Amino acid sequence: MSAPPSSAAPIRFCFDYVSPYAYLAWTQIHALAERHGRRVVPVPVVFGAILDARGQRGPAEIPAKRVYLFKDCVRLAHGFGVPLVPPPSHPFNPLLALRASSLPLSDEARRALVGQLFAAAWGGGGGVAGPDEVAQAADAAGLDGEQVVRDAGAAEIKALLRRQTDEALDAGAFGVPTMLVGDELFWGVDSLPHLDRFLEGRDPVTAEMLARWASLPASAARRGAGG
Amino acid sequence: MSAPPSSAAPIRFCFDYVSPYAYLAWTQIHALAERHGRRVVPVPVVFGAILDARGQRGPAEIPAKRVYLFKDCVRLAHGFGVPLVPPPSHPFNPLLALRASSLPLSDEARRALVGQLFAAAWGGGGGVAGPDEVAQAADAAGLDGEQVVRDAGAAEIKALLRRQTDEALDAGAFGVPTMLVGDELFWGVDSLPHLDRFLEGRDPVTAEMLARWASLPASAARRGAGG
Repeated sequence: MSAPPSSAAPIRFCFDYVSPYAYLAWTQIHALAERHGRRVVPVPVVFGAILDARGQRGPAEIPAKRVYLFKDCVRLAHGFGVPLVPPPSHPFNPLLALRASSLPLSDEARRALVGQLFAAAWGGGGGVAGPDEVAQAADAAGLDGEQVVRDAGAAEIKALLRRQTDEALDAGAFGVPTMLVGDELFWGVDSLPHLDRFLEGRDPVTAEMLARWASLPASAARRGAGG
Repeated sequence: MSAPPSSAAPIRFCFDYVSPYAYLAWTQIHALAERHGRRVVPVPVVFGAILDARGQRGPAEIPAKRVYLFKDCVRLAHGFGVPLVPPPSHPFNPLLALRASSLPLSDEARRALVGQLFAAAWGGGGGVAGPDEVAQAADAAGLDGEQVVRDAGAAEIKALLRRQTDEALDAGAFGVPTMLVGDELFWGVDSLPHLDRFLEGRDPVTAEMLARWASLPASAARRGAGG
């Protein structure tokens, strides 16, 4: 197989540090993208705002689900051969880390910074909830940590993070990680094999199937199901 | 490897016909169970009641998610090599089919009936929303379809389905399919490889990890996150 042309659509990787699934997907997405000659564009987004926009509760907000999902992440991490260690607190406020990751940076610097922040959040580091932790991760990525934290507080960076979140919503995102290739959306670690097949041109989904599903009538509705 | 003793805990497979993920898991669970010398006990439950109890919206009730999840199921079905065709309507009322599947039956008859009902719902059949469809599936399973539909309307069968749902909730279920082995819960098609490793005695989750996660403080909460 020949690599796709360099003009091939990149993989926009929409993430929030608060999600261990986003961390797990981050550990896999680069190898996947390289197999297909695609660029990965990390897109920090605010998961809480996405949940709000979709009227959803977060996975860890359902008490019965919270412990199970942690186990699920441990099992996935074990399968990938990567560490999965909870941060000092969870949920935590990811906004500073997300803003820092939205600063104007080279592809290489952004990938290094996001990698260090994910490792600090879920790879056994000290978390990313405070300015010291974010600065330390930025230092480890070869940047000036203090400067990064200062720049991340700028009004235009806050606005940029909001815009990135809105754009992910416009693209149909309802969770993280979301991987966008052109108009096609993939959600979650479990979708990585599906993304892989899509990029190989072997996606089994057809327009006919989608049309049939889209036009399917409902014959029952749950009481209290809301919108 | 020797097979576990026949006294080994069965795999309780909690499902609702309304869920294509439950159908997909059903197509895989028997081979998995046989590899480990385990019995599969099908447990019909009402998914809507589980969502209500957990204060969750259903996956197909989030408009942005509905089409995506269908694609996800098509992709999973393709990977498994099984058909995935939407029923005539969705969501539909699954209660009659769930009650029929809760009747006192031999293991073999129940497996045949559940298999026929799942095939009618998601394998290209005519659906399971009405008495004619349920009777037809029961006939195909070698039962007396008219009798099955009549018996399924009995008050004690309705109560049994409610009790099965309550027991799944007591066991921690928050969705379908849920696979229970003793006290251990696995949720979703994507957990089948994790269940497989668990039954092999190779589950990487440890009590220490769970204790750390359980005692983790929150340092932020989402506005409007509810409960």
